[in-house]
Amino acid sequence: MTYKQTFENCFSSTENGDQDWVRTAFMKALSQTETIASSLSVLKDEGRLPILELPEKLDDLTALSEHPFVTEKDYNRFVVVGIGGSSLGAQVLVNIRNKDDAPYLHFWDTLDYHVMRPHLSGSKLKETRFLLVSKSGTTPEILAQVLLVIEALNNEGGMRAVSQQCLVICEPGDNPLGYIADKWNIPRLDHDPDVGGRYSAFSLVGALPALIAGIDMNEVRRGAKEVLDDTLTNPESAPRVSAALNHALSDICDVRMNVLMPYSKQLEPFTHWFRQLWAESVGKEGRGSTPLNALGPIDQHSQLQLWLDGPNDKFFTLIINQDDDASPLMDVSLADNIPELDYLKNHRISDVVHAEAHATAKTLADRGKYLRCIYIETLDERTIGALMMHFMLETIFTCHLLGVNPFDQPAVEEGKRLTKMYLKGEG
Amino acid sequence: MTYKQTFENCFSSTENGDQDWVRTAFMKALSQTETIASSLSVLKDEGRLPILELPEKLDDLTALSEHPFVTEKDYNRFVVVGIGGSSLGAQVLVNIRNKDDAPYLHFWDTLDYHVMRPHLSGSKLKETRFLLVSKSGTTPEILAQVLLVIEALNNEGGMRAVSQQCLVICEPGDNPLGYIADKWNIPRLDHDPDVGGRYSAFSLVGALPALIAGIDMNEVRRGAKEVLDDTLTNPESAPRVSAALNHALSDICDVRMNVLMPYSKQLEPFTHWFRQLWAESVGKEGRGSTPLNALGPIDQHSQLQLWLDGPNDKFFTLIINQDDDASPLMDVSLADNIPELDYLKNHRISDVVHAEAHATAKTLADRGKYLRCIYIETLDERTIGALMMHFMLETIFTCHLLGVNPFDQPAVEEGKRLTKMYLKGEG
Repeated sequence: MTYKQTFENCFSSTENGDQDWVRTAFMKALSQTETIASSLSVLKDEGRLPILELPEKLDDLTALSEHPFVTEKDYNRFVVVGIGGSSLGAQVLVNIRNKDDAPYLHFWDTLDYHVMRPHLSGSKLKETRFLLVSKSGTTPEILAQVLLVIEALNNEGGMRAVSQQCLVICEPGDNPLGYIADKWNIPRLDHDPDVGGRYSAFSLVGALPALIAGIDMNEVRRGAKEVLDDTLTNPESAPRVSAALNHALSDICDVRMNVLMPYSKQLEPFTHWFRQLWAESVGKEGRGSTPLNALGPIDQHSQLQLWLDGPNDKFFTLIINQDDDASPLMDVSLADNIPELDYLKNHRISDVVHAEAHATAKTLADRGKYLRCIYIETLDERTIGALMMHFMLETIFTCHLLGVNPFDQPAVEEGKRLTKMYLKGEG
Repeated sequence: MTYKQTFENCFSSTENGDQDWVRTAFMKALSQTETIASSLSVLKDEGRLPILELPEKLDDLTALSEHPFVTEKDYNRFVVVGIGGSSLGAQVLVNIRNKDDAPYLHFWDTLDYHVMRPHLSGSKLKETRFLLVSKSGTTPEILAQVLLVIEALNNEGGMRAVSQQCLVICEPGDNPLGYIADKWNIPRLDHDPDVGGRYSAFSLVGALPALIAGIDMNEVRRGAKEVLDDTLTNPESAPRVSAALNHALSDICDVRMNVLMPYSKQLEPFTHWFRQLWAESVGKEGRGSTPLNALGPIDQHSQLQLWLDGPNDKFFTLIINQDDDASPLMDVSLADNIPELDYLKNHRISDVVHAEAHATAKTLADRGKYLRCIYIETLDERTIGALMMHFMLETIFTCHLLGVNPFDQPAVEEGKRLTKMYLKGEG
């Protein structure tokens, strides 16, 4: 496996006498994952849960690899116009390469005009292709942005520029985004209606931006498949064990928050992707813990005081990348080898990060906080595929243990209706 | 005042019968703020709490404005090497201008070598000045980065380049960073030992990067002073009312999380600054609520489901910037005026953001969630100064009501000690 998971202390807390209750609840939940795994296997085999079929699919990747947006190198900038599930998964995948590598991919997951304007005029506009993504084809933010893009391109080069520099991804059939695509001769790719946004990273929504960025999607899916196969068959697999522990900790220890803290800047979008995945899946019917994104070591300087000394109401996950970076060995002779810098001698920057990660893990555990560590050897395509699949499955299993549907998000419709009313002046 | 604060519904929740208890606890806490305000006034008048004197100071800003890093325009890039309080306040201030404006300011609040490397070689290195900031002068991350910076500059242009392109900010006296500055002839500016990192935004740590970026620090302090004066004298002032409400909601309604969600991308660093301010201040002795940063409207697509339908354990603050952006009116004739797009007709992108903000506020309130809204007319220097002062004071008053010290952070020393041990191979 591409990662290793440990629970340092969740069954050994001495702060209260709960540890036996936690273990009992954990064992019970773990045994329940057997039924869930069986149901998921059936759904997968019957073709009723496409997100579980994606890891072993091959033909769609071949087709995507041959798409002009991937093969033709005549544009060096791409803007992905999407929000939530239409953007975050792609950001995770693209971010494992160096940020400055060409082609340059920008994500407009905001409505701030300051962010959009630079791409909408002058030389940047001429060099840029736009991926316009909305699963339903009705997301107001995306439709507003699409109108701006089309107006700018049309002013610059007419319908030809619009159809050449844009690509639409939405569900097949009639919807406003699809209508706009057809009217302007913009090529359309079909978003599978049965692949929900927050679970769509391995589908074309994540894969196409990743392929443009030069990411090997076969390896991403290979990493995902290893985790999926293990989870569906192995009762001790990491996602099932974690789901059972999540459930036991909320039930017995009143754990309300789920903190994800990688010690790797490249995994920052991963924490945002996880936040949506977890929040939209578990947050239903008054239930569900709240996800918190964090980043090591920077958040040691902003959150650690509260985590260590505040209420014991959080489950912590540290992701520790054990790879060395390419930084030079620190030369403390530049500071005359003063004794206060001894500890930095002959180390790389990545050694400091590793030491801080291990120190934070030990400090949290020693204080009786609920802690899991995930260790990875290198952050490559296979690993990121494995981590994404792990957290999708951990989320799905946790939802089933909690008794909520992992795949819907029924509560947000009212806000959407009001937004349209206010814009129409009916508020 | 530069902002307006409302509590939509915190005393009118129909979900449970708690509203009278909330109001009683709130009134009691509000009356206690009188004693706190008196104590703070005394500390301020006696010069024992410098963070409260900064808003009315003028002479230090004059001196900083004349610093070569501000006046000499021969470098177009600046890297602020700092972490936590040495970086976040400056990021908030700098971020109210357009991101692409010159000079370009970059913040290394990470140890990722991918982020640092581009600045450490070639033409970027020659164009860049480095602000090396650590209050204590002992922060391991900063010392490690400083060694890399000095090595790179020294290889390029010897001690002359080092002393010309670097500036150190740390406490006066002996400390490793100060030692390095003296050895390499790097100019030093003194960090006031009595101004704690997370409260230091109005001091030179925030002000110098802001002045380099062209921010009017006099206006920032003016906005802060208006809020401070009001808070020390007016029992109904916004920070005191908010602190009392925070206290009542945790006490009576088991509110565990404090969500800050501006509808403005430019306020994103503000949410990170607030997160540290709140977490390090309130998180002590098993007490304190957990801050959550969010951003509208993007997080409606990732968090709102949980917020609306999950546990009612959060206090929400929406910051709504009512200013219009400069985007063109949306032209729905580009989509043949199809009825599905009627609601976008003749609106700007900022209208969509405003409508979503108001819709989210109403939806949260209608569901019985605890909600505060802060309305601003325009995001300028005076407003950002006011908002920062507001949240510092809200935090300080909340801590006093909670019975914890707002200014220390005693719990994080163990992790620092372990980090050094691990690097020395003693782990």
